[in-house]
Amino acid sequence: MDGCVFCKMVKGEIPVARVYEDEAVLAFLDIGPVSDGHCLVIPKEHCARVDECDPAVLARVASSLGKIAGAVAQAMGADGYNILSNNGRAAGQLVEHLHFHVIPRKANDGVFTQWPSFEYEPGRLEKLAEEIRKNLK
Amino acid sequence: MDGCVFCKMVKGEIPVARVYEDEAVLAFLDIGPVSDGHCLVIPKEHCARVDECDPAVLARVASSLGKIAGAVAQAMGADGYNILSNNGRAAGQLVEHLHFHVIPRKANDGVFTQWPSFEYEPGRLEKLAEEIRKNLK
Repeated sequence: MDGCVFCKMVKGEIPVARVYEDEAVLAFLDIGPVSDGHCLVIPKEHCARVDECDPAVLARVASSLGKIAGAVAQAMGADGYNILSNNGRAAGQLVEHLHFHVIPRKANDGVFTQWPSFEYEPGRLEKLAEEIRKNLK
Repeated sequence: MDGCVFCKMVKGEIPVARVYEDEAVLAFLDIGPVSDGHCLVIPKEHCARVDECDPAVLARVASSLGKIAGAVAQAMGADGYNILSNNGRAAGQLVEHLHFHVIPRKANDGVFTQWPSFEYEPGRLEKLAEEIRKNLK
């Protein structure tokens, strides 16, 4: 898409530190990482969000995610990794071309510590599930 | 897998607030949500982490993610959502059956605010990319 920085990277118009590429997928190091080796995995075909992406394209991206994440973790000597896709500005998405962050993690690295979980009021769980199911029909 | 709480949910031995199900995928509300409508999307076939998962299984999960995330966001009136998979205890994984969190978000909800990014020293980006590429061969 015109003006999309990730589309320009796909076309080679903006250089990247590439770690993986196939016909459908490009993976490269994030230049503003939250941990050493933090990569971005993107579909070459432009789409903004997961829910706007052709399921076949998502499937192609996902089928490469395992080998990329495994290689990133191994190269960095990581104990684990987060795979994260922020969809929409409210969720922290800055570039409006779908991307999955692969973030290598080490025990007690303090990278992400927030997990503000709560408990639902009785009955709310089933009510929400029903609302979501209605939107899946 | 014996003793796996998510495998028991797949088999119907533990009840869930189900939002979506097909031959390969189950999606249900997280009982300890970080936002209203927070769901988990899992492959029915047991695997622990993305890098240990059959790419074909990952592809099946991913090809359902868009419609599930879209329905969750619509039902919750969300402005966006995070898709997050924690792989390994160091990355925050508590249940060792691969799962993708779908976390509906609203503007300024304060759910996740950490993004401790930094800049690489000159030359480090290419060095890390090379290390990762070596592990992808």
